[in-house]
Amino acid sequence: MVDSHLKLVTQRPLLSQARAPLTCQVEVVNEWGDASRISIPAERDLTVYVDKRELVTLMTLGGQPEWLVLGYLRNQRLVSTVADIESITVDWEVGAAAVRTRNGIDDIEARTASRVVTTGCGQGSVFGSLMDSVDAIRLPEAATVRQSQLQAIVNTIRLQDSVYKEAGSVHGCGLFQGDQPLIFVEDVGRHNAVDAIAGWMWLQEPAVQRGDDKVFYTTGRLTSEMVIKAAQMGIAVVVSRSGITQMGLEVAQRVGLCAIGRATHRRFLCFSHPERIVYDAVPHRPDHVPGSTVIAAA
Amino acid sequence: MVDSHLKLVTQRPLLSQARAPLTCQVEVVNEWGDASRISIPAERDLTVYVDKRELVTLMTLGGQPEWLVLGYLRNQRLVSTVADIESITVDWEVGAAAVRTRNGIDDIEARTASRVVTTGCGQGSVFGSLMDSVDAIRLPEAATVRQSQLQAIVNTIRLQDSVYKEAGSVHGCGLFQGDQPLIFVEDVGRHNAVDAIAGWMWLQEPAVQRGDDKVFYTTGRLTSEMVIKAAQMGIAVVVSRSGITQMGLEVAQRVGLCAIGRATHRRFLCFSHPERIVYDAVPHRPDHVPGSTVIAAA
Repeated sequence: MVDSHLKLVTQRPLLSQARAPLTCQVEVVNEWGDASRISIPAERDLTVYVDKRELVTLMTLGGQPEWLVLGYLRNQRLVSTVADIESITVDWEVGAAAVRTRNGIDDIEARTASRVVTTGCGQGSVFGSLMDSVDAIRLPEAATVRQSQLQAIVNTIRLQDSVYKEAGSVHGCGLFQGDQPLIFVEDVGRHNAVDAIAGWMWLQEPAVQRGDDKVFYTTGRLTSEMVIKAAQMGIAVVVSRSGITQMGLEVAQRVGLCAIGRATHRRFLCFSHPERIVYDAVPHRPDHVPGSTVIAAA
Repeated sequence: MVDSHLKLVTQRPLLSQARAPLTCQVEVVNEWGDASRISIPAERDLTVYVDKRELVTLMTLGGQPEWLVLGYLRNQRLVSTVADIESITVDWEVGAAAVRTRNGIDDIEARTASRVVTTGCGQGSVFGSLMDSVDAIRLPEAATVRQSQLQAIVNTIRLQDSVYKEAGSVHGCGLFQGDQPLIFVEDVGRHNAVDAIAGWMWLQEPAVQRGDDKVFYTTGRLTSEMVIKAAQMGIAVVVSRSGITQMGLEVAQRVGLCAIGRATHRRFLCFSHPERIVYDAVPHRPDHVPGSTVIAAA
């Protein structure tokens, strides 16, 4: 046990702890011509170099750049295990993230030649091959989410201290185990926030890396990209404040992912695999007469 | 005049008129376990081939795919004039857009090798070279927007028939000349909607192609990408329902673009170059005492 634990520790990458202000104060003029000052979110460029080769420039809020870079490499399937990464060093002075791998990335030229510009973004794979990889995913049947857990998650997000509350114009993503929030990340692009969470997961102990007992929350829409990334992380339940697109839904149905949208207070709409929901906290509604359309009730 | 008109007509590309459903009905289950049917927006993959070479896969609603492809090539600066494009043929059966150029695209391999993953997305240029090109832009000083025009624009968007009203989860962009809407495009990604408008502009007569007398409206945030694209189109006034990011603001300040956010009903916040606003319709506010902070008033 000691040996494998040591092995785990030594295989984790060295990460810098680069930090930068996430908001700034600016002067605005309103409809009466009056000036005032408000906060807006940062947006900065981070050019990623893998073994000194320029890979991509990400536009990011800048909160967790090392997790973002690690998760980007993971979700683009450029690295298959965190042990492939020796170090990630972010320097905001020059807007660069230097990634050192242990053994290089095979065939990186060809694997980054074609790209998919997704709805929220995140690209890098030929679309067909991306969809092939999705077809190989079957999320575990036993994964469920309790309605009381959904309500707790929505409430936790509501109370969460955030850049959004201060400055608006960012998306937030959170990872939950049961009712408990594990991590909350915001970014100017929701694809970055989910990548940062994917990076963070890879740095945790094995029990936290598992996706089958997690719920992923996002303020953003459930586009195909968001659903594909959650599925790649092994997460079977995704919750959004917003809606879903047709391809997001098709992917969710195919891989067995329970996609829940319009989640506010106690309300939600489940778009796919409602059998994963345990209705343990159905809201009281005096006039509600369950009809033939009722799928499940506590 | 006749000759130049004929030349103009013959230089316009041939475009297919591919159409596909923009919404679909799906079954959802709510917090009581009741099933119902709602509309969600489409999201489909469109792989762009330029002279038979695969360039990129765009994830799109699918409303105006030919304009989208043309505008994508324009905003990625892969073509410098619409006359370079002979035809764009979209086939939804196979999710492909075949672009034929008149003379090929010089150096396409190198120009598409590095990429910037922007906030909303849209990539393709090395970030530094993108910023260099921004530095070359100086929007015309004479371009202004009247407050009454802003109010008319916001009201027109409010009344606009839209996929958003039916199905949510899409962004809309509109181009205005004075109070008049010229074109309104929605897409699952706001970067696609602005690209489609850039493509549409290139197909119009010269007076409509000009940006200096236009106002660009978007429901989405004013990230660096949105501001850069508007500036590249020569548009000096951009209006958003949402906010702005720090880099979006920096670019707007640098190029002379009047960036207006939080535009709803008669309210707005101007983030940059408020001198472009003509305050001809200041809302009545009985308790308003203009103070030393007043920048301008009608």
